Amino acid sequence: MLHIGVIGCGYWGPNLIRNFQIPQRSRVTMCADLDAGRLEHMRDLYPLLRATQDAREILEDPQIGAVAIATPVSTHHAIAMEALRAGKHVFVEKPLAQSSEQCMEMAAEASLRRRTLMVGHTFVYTAAVTKIRDLIAQGELGTIYYLNSTRVNLGVFQPDINVIWDLAPHDISIMNHILGCRPERVAAHGKSSVRPGIEDVAFIDLEYPSGVIANIHVSWLDPCKIRRTTVVGSRKMLVYDDVSALEKIRVYDKGVNVPPHYDNFGEFSLSYRFGDILTPRLDDSEPLKVECRHFVDCIESGQHPRSNSEEGLAVVRVLEAACDSLHREGKTVDIAYPVLET
Amino acid sequence: MLHIGVIGCGYWGPNLIRNFQIPQRSRVTMCADLDAGRLEHMRDLYPLLRATQDAREILEDPQIGAVAIATPVSTHHAIAMEALRAGKHVFVEKPLAQSSEQCMEMAAEASLRRRTLMVGHTFVYTAAVTKIRDLIAQGELGTIYYLNSTRVNLGVFQPDINVIWDLAPHDISIMNHILGCRPERVAAHGKSSVRPGIEDVAFIDLEYPSGVIANIHVSWLDPCKIRRTTVVGSRKMLVYDDVSALEKIRVYDKGVNVPPHYDNFGEFSLSYRFGDILTPRLDDSEPLKVECRHFVDCIESGQHPRSNSEEGLAVVRVLEAACDSLHREGKTVDIAYPVLET
Amino acid sequence: MLHIGVIGCGYWGPNLIRNFQIPQRSRVTMCADLDAGRLEHMRDLYPLLRATQDAREILEDPQIGAVAIATPVSTHHAIAMEALRAGKHVFVEKPLAQSSEQCMEMAAEASLRRRTLMVGHTFVYTAAVTKIRDLIAQGELGTIYYLNSTRVNLGVFQPDINVIWDLAPHDISIMNHILGCRPERVAAHGKSSVRPGIEDVAFIDLEYPSGVIANIHVSWLDPCKIRRTTVVGSRKMLVYDDVSALEKIRVYDKGVNVPPHYDNFGEFSLSYRFGDILTPRLDDSEPLKVECRHFVDCIESGQHPRSNSEEGLAVVRVLEAACDSLHREGKTVDIAYPVLET
Amino acid sequence: MLHIGVIGCGYWGPNLIRNFQIPQRSRVTMCADLDAGRLEHMRDLYPLLRATQDAREILEDPQIGAVAIATPVSTHHAIAMEALRAGKHVFVEKPLAQSSEQCMEMAAEASLRRRTLMVGHTFVYTAAVTKIRDLIAQGELGTIYYLNSTRVNLGVFQPDINVIWDLAPHDISIMNHILGCRPERVAAHGKSSVRPGIEDVAFIDLEYPSGVIANIHVSWLDPCKIRRTTVVGSRKMLVYDDVSALEKIRVYDKGVNVPPHYDNFGEFSLSYRFGDILTPRLDDSEPLKVECRHFVDCIESGQHPRSNSEEGLAVVRVLEAACDSLHREGKTVDIAYPVLET
Repeated sequence: MLHIGVIGCGYWGPNLIRNFQIPQRSRVTMCADLDAGRLEHMRDLYPLLRATQDAREILEDPQIGAVAIATPVSTHHAIAMEALRAGKHVFVEKPLAQSSEQCMEMAAEASLRRRTLMVGHTFVYTAAVTKIRDLIAQGELGTIYYLNSTRVNLGVFQPDINVIWDLAPHDISIMNHILGCRPERVAAHGKSSVRPGIEDVAFIDLEYPSGVIANIHVSWLDPCKIRRTTVVGSRKMLVYDDVSALEKIRVYDKGVNVPPHYDNFGEFSLSYRFGDILTPRLDDSEPLKVECRHFVDCIESGQHPRSNSEEGLAVVRVLEAACDSLHREGKTVDIAYPVLET
Repeated sequence: MLHIGVIGCGYWGPNLIRNFQIPQRSRVTMCADLDAGRLEHMRDLYPLLRATQDAREILEDPQIGAVAIATPVSTHHAIAMEALRAGKHVFVEKPLAQSSEQCMEMAAEASLRRRTLMVGHTFVYTAAVTKIRDLIAQGELGTIYYLNSTRVNLGVFQPDINVIWDLAPHDISIMNHILGCRPERVAAHGKSSVRPGIEDVAFIDLEYPSGVIANIHVSWLDPCKIRRTTVVGSRKMLVYDDVSALEKIRVYDKGVNVPPHYDNFGEFSLSYRFGDILTPRLDDSEPLKVECRHFVDCIESGQHPRSNSEEGLAVVRVLEAACDSLHREGKTVDIAYPVLET
Repeated sequence: MLHIGVIGCGYWGPNLIRNFQIPQRSRVTMCADLDAGRLEHMRDLYPLLRATQDAREILEDPQIGAVAIATPVSTHHAIAMEALRAGKHVFVEKPLAQSSEQCMEMAAEASLRRRTLMVGHTFVYTAAVTKIRDLIAQGELGTIYYLNSTRVNLGVFQPDINVIWDLAPHDISIMNHILGCRPERVAAHGKSSVRPGIEDVAFIDLEYPSGVIANIHVSWLDPCKIRRTTVVGSRKMLVYDDVSALEKIRVYDKGVNVPPHYDNFGEFSLSYRFGDILTPRLDDSEPLKVECRHFVDCIESGQHPRSNSEEGLAVVRVLEAACDSLHREGKTVDIAYPVLET
Repeated sequence: MLHIGVIGCGYWGPNLIRNFQIPQRSRVTMCADLDAGRLEHMRDLYPLLRATQDAREILEDPQIGAVAIATPVSTHHAIAMEALRAGKHVFVEKPLAQSSEQCMEMAAEASLRRRTLMVGHTFVYTAAVTKIRDLIAQGELGTIYYLNSTRVNLGVFQPDINVIWDLAPHDISIMNHILGCRPERVAAHGKSSVRPGIEDVAFIDLEYPSGVIANIHVSWLDPCKIRRTTVVGSRKMLVYDDVSALEKIRVYDKGVNVPPHYDNFGEFSLSYRFGDILTPRLDDSEPLKVECRHFVDCIESGQHPRSNSEEGLAVVRVLEAACDSLHREGKTVDIAYPVLET
């Protein structure tokens, strides 16, 4: 039985506690938060849970084998490093850290200590994203032309990060996962409408290998809640609407038939294909549950998590580059990915 | 009774013919198209209409006072110039011409000849866009923070222009009209997925005066037909869904209450406002009918059309700058607007 | 070339005129209406059309081989009888007539004169209804349990008929067609909200053979336009939404798995099946065009129309019985179908 | 601090337990269920809760002042009677009991013992239903013409009751509450598609005083989850969509203008009104929370609950009459309401 400590009991913490209660395999025995009110609330929900304002108590408890960190991003690195040094396996909410340097340090420490380090890219554990990845891998959509993703609503302003760091990790991790590769260049435009210096709306343009392009629109200032990704391929097109309860994915048998050979000077004759729409049935397991079990699996088996530190670093590199572009008037920025020693 | 000749009888031509039949005021007496089949079709629809393959016949007919041009964009300038020189008033489908130089020549010729030159920015004649302009002008939405617009579907590839020139004139003319100003800078990203050299998807970032930003997504390769513009203001937010038959505009009494004074070092306390949603009843006149009448009004009164050559030029300048950016890897490009002599 | 006269140029007449212009096969040469304004409008639309206030002129024209009747229901019988006696083939808008007696007389006259008599049950000529009929016939939905249909909006009050006679012919003709049988019993409830004596909302319960039940909700007083029919079968379920432009049919692979044998005293164990949703691509021909061509086909070939007088009579019998029930406090009424002599 | 025992820990029980934990006012100290597995689950969720298979332990515990019953309907009466006799206040899930006789006995017992007896008509505690009731009471909708309600999905078959008893209590309690009166007559049609003798789909026609009619469609066999009630008034129309998270109510300023005086023999001239649509902001408290607090309030103050035994009885009377009609081929049945002695 793996004992887990949860550090950070805000919005996401209670969900982690609930999902890390895995019969016969793991349970959360301690939680920490600076806010006494939140601890009170956690004790009400889980009377047997030890709750403390000092996260160090968790790190020092020899019975605790793993730590889940759901604190503000600016603290991820420090807490994770301490936890790794204390010999714990570590799960960190997305994004993995505030900078790629921090990510690399964390990855190196985990590697040195032979501990599992996993980042909470929850969407890569959803049935919908898995389905999209499979459809692409099987060639069902044909050659991928482009993707675009909208993740907006009237959302909570984060105190320490802008809307790109808050919301875009979801879109980037989804896109990286379903395409099986990483963007090479990025440009971003945005604005700080409400709070000076903290962008609350942004539009991000990505270039993936093979000329696949992607656009991501994130906003804390939209009247509608939209979580919608479109994948356009040469054979089929797909819409992933995460807000829909029962019809998250729609596969459109639509496309343009391009003649195989054509004369540049002559007529370029295209025909359009309009076919059926399929909404595949998806497994409705809670993604966080799948994710939490995967973390425990990886600790037990020693395998690398699907959302390992390399994936976490890759996302952070894109975030850094996007913000770099944003502050340079949308200049297109190349993204280099450091190689992790493992 | 104004006699009008329509040049170009493709998709849009028949709609112009129908809407320029204004009892007591104007009628279409001739139409021209290079395609004999289309002319046959026009004769079937309007047995009394003279149909010709030679547009010159229209220009040389002294009874014809005005010409409406719905031909491919690459021919707008040549035909319009001939028509103006022949003393006709001229209505040109959007975009006004292929370049700002062409637009300026056309405007100068119209000015010289004292003829009305109007471009078919149809959306500025819709009840929805008029309503949005009014709401913004009255301060109902507060300070405008940003706009974003999506205009996509599995659309017809144009032979001579890319998707920006085909679809974005709508969004740019709408935004210019409702904001009452013009973008100062633009960056664009896109891709030629199907036909080399002709972009079929693009994402355009605009900066308007006072820091208002806007993003436009246009595509001929999307499985869904979407025509949706969001306007986010400090007091209210608005969604304009042109695909909806009866609920084109929704005004959301949503926003973030920012404290009037705040201490940069202290806590920045925001509160959120969630209120009613209002879908105002809109007049359902056909916009093209309003537009055609406006053209006839302007000819009669001598007033400048709402979508005059200056507006047409302004849109073309943005299109040029956007394509310039697109071909320079998304570099942000400043947009200068030449002054028209009138 | 079949010459056709259209009697009644209100809302529906112009559509008939347009769709009966079939190259090489039929054209509308005359139209009649009591309202001089409507005739003026028809002449504007079709300058070569002869327009008259006296329908007799059409019936007496020996060149005219067929007549299409789109007048108020109360006049269907008289006009159709005169037309049949004048030797014309006859197309009548739904419902066929005001009573089953009238329908039988019309059918007898058509049979005697060897003329085609067809009723405008337009929906049985749609790709959607044909698809549903095929899916049911192929057993794709399994055993049909029940249907329900909603046909409501803020609609035009008819001067001479209630909402059942106005709207329910669509639902009844659709249900009869897709099930391939006719209801045996009916009960109806409704109300005259606005105009005394003319019901503007009604709920109709039907029993088809084999215990299939159906409910129809019709209203001229609903804020939303809804045209939606649900077909529930033991294997799959289907929703037909006629308001949707592109997704009229959705087939749900949903159902309840019933154990084949079970012990009444023991546990009755059901399991649920949730599968894919399929939106089949449908041909988007205009149904009225298909219908008009079918009428001309039947005249040429002598075959019975899909919506022949027997189908027209069957629908009128249900309407009569429904109104009978409505005026007897919803009492369930048996429906007998007279046998037509042909 | 009121101690509450919850009897029945199936689907609904855990929600009751959670919502009856009201700081300083009430807490659930015991729960009972026949199923040991459910009790195990409850102990996992609430480690401090005493869980028993014998409900009598709850009734015999002198510390427990109130009992909430969420067992199958067939057991409501027996358990409630025992609880009342044991001096407990009683909350019963809807419907109150299996027959009006049972309801009357329960009401009499509660009255005799001076105990609060409340039925879980949850929807009358929602912000949406309260808003509709207010709009009607204020005359905002004008004279009410009719209502119709659809409550369908692929739902769980209840072992002891049909779909009318399972789902229609919601619609009837909502309609009674918003209209402030009770139906006088009912007719119902339905079918047992899957399980012999247990109707899984039904259509219910109600007549309220002043000629208001209503139709309710309930089904366990529909592919879509629909919870939608339309209220049509002479001034405005309203749609209540309980499935929508954020736009539960839409008020349509639509209607028919009827001339105040008219000549029966002359023309009856109607005009249509199409106006704005308003989606009022609603408080998003959990209705069950409001309901549970109301129960505790009533116990403390002695006031009658909004959903008291008289309302519970009224709903059961309609259910009985509807099933009576269903088994008499849809015959319209008068509904008499016994007077409760209180």
